[in-house]
Amino acid sequence: MDSNASHASMRSRLRHAFQAALPLPHATESHLAGALQDTLQHPGSMVRAELAYRVGCSLALSEERAEHLAIAIEYFHTASLLFDDLPSMDDARLRRGKPCAHHVYGEGAAILAALAFINRAYSLIWKGVAGLAPEVQAAALCYLERHLGIAGLLNGQSQDLHYSRLARHISAPQSIAMGKTVSLIRLALVMPAIVAQARPEEVSLLERLAIFWGLTYQTLDDLKDVLYTEQGQGKTAARDAYLDRPNMALTIGIPESFDRIDRLMNLGSRTITRLADARAPLAFLREVRVQFNKEIANLSEASLTRAS
Amino acid sequence: MDSNASHASMRSRLRHAFQAALPLPHATESHLAGALQDTLQHPGSMVRAELAYRVGCSLALSEERAEHLAIAIEYFHTASLLFDDLPSMDDARLRRGKPCAHHVYGEGAAILAALAFINRAYSLIWKGVAGLAPEVQAAALCYLERHLGIAGLLNGQSQDLHYSRLARHISAPQSIAMGKTVSLIRLALVMPAIVAQARPEEVSLLERLAIFWGLTYQTLDDLKDVLYTEQGQGKTAARDAYLDRPNMALTIGIPESFDRIDRLMNLGSRTITRLADARAPLAFLREVRVQFNKEIANLSEASLTRAS
Repeated sequence: MDSNASHASMRSRLRHAFQAALPLPHATESHLAGALQDTLQHPGSMVRAELAYRVGCSLALSEERAEHLAIAIEYFHTASLLFDDLPSMDDARLRRGKPCAHHVYGEGAAILAALAFINRAYSLIWKGVAGLAPEVQAAALCYLERHLGIAGLLNGQSQDLHYSRLARHISAPQSIAMGKTVSLIRLALVMPAIVAQARPEEVSLLERLAIFWGLTYQTLDDLKDVLYTEQGQGKTAARDAYLDRPNMALTIGIPESFDRIDRLMNLGSRTITRLADARAPLAFLREVRVQFNKEIANLSEASLTRAS
Repeated sequence: MDSNASHASMRSRLRHAFQAALPLPHATESHLAGALQDTLQHPGSMVRAELAYRVGCSLALSEERAEHLAIAIEYFHTASLLFDDLPSMDDARLRRGKPCAHHVYGEGAAILAALAFINRAYSLIWKGVAGLAPEVQAAALCYLERHLGIAGLLNGQSQDLHYSRLARHISAPQSIAMGKTVSLIRLALVMPAIVAQARPEEVSLLERLAIFWGLTYQTLDDLKDVLYTEQGQGKTAARDAYLDRPNMALTIGIPESFDRIDRLMNLGSRTITRLADARAPLAFLREVRVQFNKEIANLSEASLTRAS
């Protein structure tokens, strides 16, 4: 298989695993079942699962363990989207081009579906670390707790909700992005490395890359919110200004946000070079960078169209 | 120490652990911090933690492991109450005599606080099983997933929300109580036994007791909703009729509900006798039965006052 074919086969494997890893018992209540089935049928880009799976395999983790970790992280991400879209959070109408689960099945069903993803995700994490040395397990689970919990994702989301009370300075959206967005990218890039018992310097380079890419990812998302229409991105657009939420493009400006992305991507590339020198298979990260670059190019074009 | 003093010391130990096991980082966003602090300061009866701790210690589990499991189960229960009280679920105003977290800090903060309890609970479960044989860990974690997830608690809660669509027969509230209430009592009674590697017949007797007591517990709760005022129970009362939710007392009648409790308690007592024969320390379960009996006596009195 050439590289494109093997990449497509890996993506199809992960997509299948995403849909198969949460089988619904026959007796599942219909609203809960509907919210789960709809969400399982629209996995999104699965970039976090792909990163986790490829980092794991590059560091000689078994495909089975890498897949468990990858799907778990994608399920945590999926749960966070179900919660984010609720009326008490971002009050969104659209997600992945479809009406949000709470609009179709009710808020209760959306919340319970998110909890089902979380419950299953913890089980998959355990399968990913089962039978390993207790200190490896402890390191991985401690990392997971820190970045999902009140020192990570949950605090970022809470600061996001109460943003209007914070000072309007670049440090506010950046600290929120560190909690809200970097946390899950960190889990995708670093947790498989911890489980694979990578060398400390590899783990710390992956940490750096997660920060550069996580901040890039959030800035791209902020630009999309400002530049794209609902049809363009398949989710509710222009929410940040309306809800007074942190948005880098609204804080520092559109051209400045592209400059920032350039700097972050450049730092990321240098980190990838060091990672690939340490472990040749980690050079796959350059392929992921291509996807980022495509998105950046599309957004630049949209910003020019808008300016003209 | 006599038995009362040692019981009081154990309760105080668990209460302290409940409040200490989720330390808030300095940077925790204020709404999230407020919702967490208020909830940590009002632990409720902690009956699930007490059951789990005492079952674990009775079966020769270390006090440390038993405490981790006990607080984890209490945190899962606490999270379920934060979610249950939301406008999209039971729309409650009062919990443990205080305004609900979502009324004070907003729905977003209540949801994120519940998720913080869940995140911490999974870590504590992990500490409770760390270093044990992989097959013991797998059995315990699989049991946890089944009873918290879409085959257990989450499905019970979802059926509860959509009750008005089900047929009005005793089987509906009973099946919902099996998911919604029995699941957490099961975790409290059975999971520490699995972790302690109890004999299969002991585990299966504890399963039976969890069903008898869980159904008793739900029937008592249903009677309280019908018989008590808000002041009497510290939470929003008379919700079930208003929201059209399953309630055994409303389905089969008040005297019939007391008959049902008698039958369930009797089956429970016979199970406790067999457990105490198998393992003498499990005779502590008779003390817990005394607490049930007090509640039943108080409720009987309330029902007589109401009838007169």
